[in-house]
This record gives sequence, structure tokens and C-alpha cells, in this order.
Amino acid sequence: MHRVLLREIVIDAPAEQFDAVSRFWAGLLGTEAKQVPDFPEFTALPNPAALSWVGLQRINEGPARYHVDVETDDVEAEVARLIRLGAIEKGRHRSWVVLEDPAGLLLCVVPVDSEDFEARSRVVDG
Amino acid sequence: MHRVLLREIVIDAPAEQFDAVSRFWAGLLGTEAKQVPDFPEFTALPNPAALSWVGLQRINEGPARYHVDVETDDVEAEVARLIRLGAIEKGRHRSWVVLEDPAGLLLCVVPVDSEDFEARSRVVDG
Repeated sequence: MHRVLLREIVIDAPAEQFDAVSRFWAGLLGTEAKQVPDFPEFTALPNPAALSWVGLQRINEGPARYHVDVETDDVEAEVARLIRLGAIEKGRHRSWVVLEDPAGLLLCVVPVDSEDFEARSRVVDG
Repeated sequence: MHRVLLREIVIDAPAEQFDAVSRFWAGLLGTEAKQVPDFPEFTALPNPAALSWVGLQRINEGPARYHVDVETDDVEAEVARLIRLGAIEKGRHRSWVVLEDPAGLLLCVVPVDSEDFEARSRVVDG
């Protein structure tokens, strides 16, 4: 048994479109984009007009896309569970694992980071 | 002045992949997929293990994609504001307007539907 929470929508934008995309989403969400100091490819959109967290990632290849982050207190157990549900593992980066859903949509399984994870997440089996 | 809230992540899946995608996301989120009676192309994922709402849409052309729904108490004002921020209008369906962000990512501007919209949304200018 472990816990999961779909926490974040990430907007992945190619480098040449990044500034326009960043201005658009900060404006849409009534916030200001702030580059994350330790991870310059990521830009936060603090306290957005949104139910979930929303962030931006500068990508070096491929077209713009959305992906989602699933937070969990047991990354390996959650990756194994999602593979049983039909996901494919695509890569590992620092603390997170990149998966594709059965239609090829990207999601990342990330370790707990939210202060309110215990309160907001749900227990799953396996 | 009107209000906005990024409320929902929608998983758009081609018809031939829809059942596998639906099982996957219902399992990931610890819920059961329920087709929406009046709009059979939409499938709800009630009370998901997620901060935002998550839904599924069966699509008839193109590859799988995510899109997001932005809820507002003034659809026309919000569409005009987002076009000024760099969006392009792609179409109109029933009560909502389909836009692309500056990199081509899909979003829909939808009229207020959530009971807690007033409490969760944010006032924007224009």
C-alpha cells in the first residue's frame, strides 16, 4: 500500500517558443513565471489561478506538449503498479521516472514534495 | 474584470485506444470511469486522487493528447484576453471555445460549472 496524488500539469515548450509560452501561461493564470534556481530548465508559476500546480519546462527537442506529475511516497511501487496498468517506462532522471500511458501520453512519477501530500493523496493497492 | 480557474485536465484518446486509456487513468487515480450520459464522448473520473478534475474524451482524429479547461464567468472576455496574450481561436462547440497557446497546445474556455468556482477562482483584468 502506498499513496498517490496527481499534483502538477507541466507545460513543455521548445526553447525557441519558451518566452512566448511562459508569458501566455503566467498571464492566463494571473501569476509571474519564476525560473527555478537549482533547475534552470524548470520555471514555476507560483500560486496560479488553478486547482493543481502548473509549471513550465524548457525542452530541447520535439514539439510542445503537456505532461502531468504523479506524486507518491513509493516511486518504485507506483511505477510497477502503473506498468501493470499498461504504462511503458521511458526514462529515469534524478529522482523521477518518465512513463507513457497506453496511448503514449507522458507522465512522471515523482517522490513526495508537497507539504499537504498526506492530506490530499489517496492510498492505492500494490 | 472577470474570474478564471484552470479546473480540469482532459485526456483525449483516439477511439481505438480509448478503453485501454480509460482503464489506465481510472486505475492510476483510484476511481472508476463513468461515461457522461448526455455527452457520450466524455467520460468522468469522479473524485480522483488529484488536485484538479480529470476527465477523458474520445476523439475521432489525431493522436492522443492532453488539454486543459479554463473555467470563467465571462467566456467572451476571457477568450479576448487570451488572444491578446498570444492564443489563437480554433473553434466553438456548444458553450465552450477551443484555443491554442503560442506553441499550439490546446485549451478550452468553458463557462462556470463548479459549485466552488467563486471561492477557488481568481479575478483577472480585461
